[in-house]
Amino acid sequence: MPQTTPLIDLTPDQQIRLDRQMEFLREMDKLKSVLRGTKLINKSRRENSAEHSWHIMLYAAVLAEHAGPDVDIARVLRMLLIHDIVEIDAGDAPIHGHVDHAAMELKEAAAADRLFNLLPADQARAFRALWDEFEAAKTPDAQFAKAIDRTQPPVGNLHSGGGSWIEYNVTMDQIDTRVGVPINRGAPVLWAWLHPLLSNFFAKR
Amino acid sequence: MPQTTPLIDLTPDQQIRLDRQMEFLREMDKLKSVLRGTKLINKSRRENSAEHSWHIMLYAAVLAEHAGPDVDIARVLRMLLIHDIVEIDAGDAPIHGHVDHAAMELKEAAAADRLFNLLPADQARAFRALWDEFEAAKTPDAQFAKAIDRTQPPVGNLHSGGGSWIEYNVTMDQIDTRVGVPINRGAPVLWAWLHPLLSNFFAKR
Ligand SMILES: [Ca+2]
Repeated sequence: MPQTTPLIDLTPDQQIRLDRQMEFLREMDKLKSVLRGTKLINKSRRENSAEHSWHIMLYAAVLAEHAGPDVDIARVLRMLLIHDIVEIDAGDAPIHGHVDHAAMELKEAAAADRLFNLLPADQARAFRALWDEFEAAKTPDAQFAKAIDRTQPPVGNLHSGGGSWIEYNVTMDQIDTRVGVPINRGAPVLWAWLHPLLSNFFAKR
Repeated sequence: MPQTTPLIDLTPDQQIRLDRQMEFLREMDKLKSVLRGTKLINKSRRENSAEHSWHIMLYAAVLAEHAGPDVDIARVLRMLLIHDIVEIDAGDAPIHGHVDHAAMELKEAAAADRLFNLLPADQARAFRALWDEFEAAKTPDAQFAKAIDRTQPPVGNLHSGGGSWIEYNVTMDQIDTRVGVPINRGAPVLWAWLHPLLSNFFAKR
């Protein structure tokens, strides 16, 4: 029987850290079962928050040239990687749904407390700080990350005849407020591309 | 009617680049419909390649401290982000299934030609070079990325009573060759953690 014998022995500290890290990573599997308001472009089913996170990281990598000069794309990618994990406990709040935002914030903070603390303490702090920065949307990195998070659903909806806009009866006014404001703030080039397509789509409805 | 007027006008070059970038990003939605051999830990359904890509990026970020000193995690994340997109055309080849590897390589190269070339030429070249590097598995970044790609399924399977190992009738010998070799090469610390758990699991079968 061939044996791929480990090349090294773990230190006790490595063993403890890996046990915690792997427990966190296993728990993260649950994000694949959190469903969003949006559907896949082929309309076969709702999108889940794990595949959405992958997709917007690809958006950020491909659209990096349209970020401001003070944006660090590697940090943006790390932010987007973890931006939705609180939904494992708190669920997704559809952008066009009716949500009690204060209650949702409390739920998400409790989720962040539980989930990030599955990690070793130093990593829990670092990941939590990155998530807090994303949520606060004050830094250039966070504002670009938020803009990217808002860009993917309309690009898909425009391609699939309206998608979740039809279901939620969305107007151009609402798109302006909920999508246009954050994209225009974090990535004005993307809003300049998206705005005429959206205006045209909603003018025809 | 409130209007979030774009703050800038696009240059003709920006317009052309964004049209292509957005077409590529829309096409990528299809990776969410490529199903893998593995199931979610809760066994509710098969995992798709988009959410798998997200999950292994999280593995890479959390387990970065266990990489060698010459590994650049930001590059590893970019590699993992795109490592599976050829499956949109070529499909997933389950690691424990029976696959004609030469035929699969041709299919994947054709897929890479079509898909990456949806992007502006400079980006098509850069993304393709990164994917080629991952596939060749010669650099420290690619070897760590491959090790991470091989680590996630067994961690899940160990937690769900065997998962795809049962379905594919996998033995410890096969795990040693297909999983142990690449993990031991790219991330020996992870194999030192995983090996005793796997030995124990397969000894009991
Ligand atoms: Ca893979």
